[in-house]
Amino acid sequence: MSFPEKVYLRELGPREGFQTLPQVIPTAAKLELIRLLGLSGVPEIEIASFVRPDKVPQMADAETIVKDFVAQPGVKYTALYLNAHGFERAEGAGRLSNDGWLYVAASDTFLKRNNNSTVAEMVAKIPEWLDLFKRFGKALHGVMISTAFGCNYEGVISQTRVLDILGMVQAQLQAHGCSPAEISLADTMGWGTPPKVKTLVSAVRERFPASEVSLHLHDTRGTGMANVYAGLEAGVRIIDCSVGGMGGCPFAKGAAGNVPTEDVAFMCQELGIQTGVSLQKLCAAARYAESVVGAPLPGKLYKTIDRVP
Amino acid sequence: MSFPEKVYLRELGPREGFQTLPQVIPTAAKLELIRLLGLSGVPEIEIASFVRPDKVPQMADAETIVKDFVAQPGVKYTALYLNAHGFERAEGAGRLSNDGWLYVAASDTFLKRNNNSTVAEMVAKIPEWLDLFKRFGKALHGVMISTAFGCNYEGVISQTRVLDILGMVQAQLQAHGCSPAEISLADTMGWGTPPKVKTLVSAVRERFPASEVSLHLHDTRGTGMANVYAGLEAGVRIIDCSVGGMGGCPFAKGAAGNVPTEDVAFMCQELGIQTGVSLQKLCAAARYAESVVGAPLPGKLYKTIDRVP
Repeated sequence: MSFPEKVYLRELGPREGFQTLPQVIPTAAKLELIRLLGLSGVPEIEIASFVRPDKVPQMADAETIVKDFVAQPGVKYTALYLNAHGFERAEGAGRLSNDGWLYVAASDTFLKRNNNSTVAEMVAKIPEWLDLFKRFGKALHGVMISTAFGCNYEGVISQTRVLDILGMVQAQLQAHGCSPAEISLADTMGWGTPPKVKTLVSAVRERFPASEVSLHLHDTRGTGMANVYAGLEAGVRIIDCSVGGMGGCPFAKGAAGNVPTEDVAFMCQELGIQTGVSLQKLCAAARYAESVVGAPLPGKLYKTIDRVP
Repeated sequence: MSFPEKVYLRELGPREGFQTLPQVIPTAAKLELIRLLGLSGVPEIEIASFVRPDKVPQMADAETIVKDFVAQPGVKYTALYLNAHGFERAEGAGRLSNDGWLYVAASDTFLKRNNNSTVAEMVAKIPEWLDLFKRFGKALHGVMISTAFGCNYEGVISQTRVLDILGMVQAQLQAHGCSPAEISLADTMGWGTPPKVKTLVSAVRERFPASEVSLHLHDTRGTGMANVYAGLEAGVRIIDCSVGGMGGCPFAKGAAGNVPTEDVAFMCQELGIQTGVSLQKLCAAARYAESVVGAPLPGKLYKTIDRVP
């Protein structure tokens, strides 16, 4: 066991949380949640998603969100994009600190449904992405590999497959003189389990020692927090999470939200790991998110009445 | 790490799950849940609670439940009792295989509210309990210590306190020529965290090497499944759980249900640990429990639509 000293909690609630709802949430409510999260001490918040408004009407107000949100000093605000047009819209909206991220997936079927692409096509497009980043004055920051543990369409995904795809991506990047600072292993549909998390984190680190390995965990089958714990045992220092555990992937039937930010932060605190957040303020944000969604969220800590230690 | 080969899942849903609800659930619905759980492969099911009907009207039908439930061969059916009268009622109802359990708590305040007793009074009453068990032809089986990790009234409970109380109990038992086969560490209000679980399990084992140490974990602050994982890493072979994660302690404000049986069973399966259950049948029981309760339960696995591996 070698727990990290500090963990960087990347808050995705405002992006993950609203896009999956049947109803469209008023822009003002989204802005209020972003404001509350900005006060909680999380270092980074993904506040919107620049996807097609006809496909994801819940995110049609992305430009307005970016124009109007209340920014807290020291907090990094970003938005998701899945194609060049989305990236350009995000940059055009201004005020964001988006990094250059490449999104690949270990499951061809998932990638086809989510991005209408194949792994090979995604890899072939990398030079275009790098050109795009350069045009906007950005360096490549990270590579996220979705369905890194399994996929509802293809079943269990082997470690070899993940390493092979990351190897293809790395080769393309090296040919263009760059390398990812971060590799995010995304358990998009909740197929990860503690031993798989530990094994894959170790294998990816060993193969790509220059990259920081991070985790993005959806809690579809109940092992989400155990997976976080296993990741922390393996020394992972960046964890994506979502206030109240809200969210899920709109293209993955039955997929649940990310691990709840405040529950992860509480566990870190109990393990002696610094996160820099206020549990009280995160729980206040989660309670607000619950009132907006209109139903209890998966998170536990924010529901405890007596004490948030 | 030394995962056990097999884990014994003690199902508490029909007892934990209904006593906390504002509404009284029809007896027929309870009986149907017990029937479904009996088919799932769990080795033991706590089906009722012999408590005061004026205090817990949700359990007023305990005698009827015991008279009418459909028993599956090979499954052990039990009921909870907190005082001699409850024990006698449970025995009088017939058909149960109740063990002799002593219930103590590490928090005096909790014990006062839950049992109107103090730790010292509980320990002093042990000879009466042993006489009672003997009168009904039972041996002492186990000691459950509630609030073993913390208490909303008293805060964090120290390991020393837990060991001291268990030591007092053990001394009383030894004076009467017996010793508990099982010591259950109950995290009644969800104060446990993975390192605390590991440390306390090890300490109790070291002090009482003749007893099997088991876990009873309420998931109040989100670390429930991580706590289970830590317990499995420490080699724990008996885990109390509740189908769908239903339940909670009616005397502990804001307390959540036990860890969900099907999520724990799934994690065990993924860790290569045998449980003997059918995940499909457990999930069917959880879906039925949800329909009876009328709201989503905390469990995750039963909500996945595509696949229950």
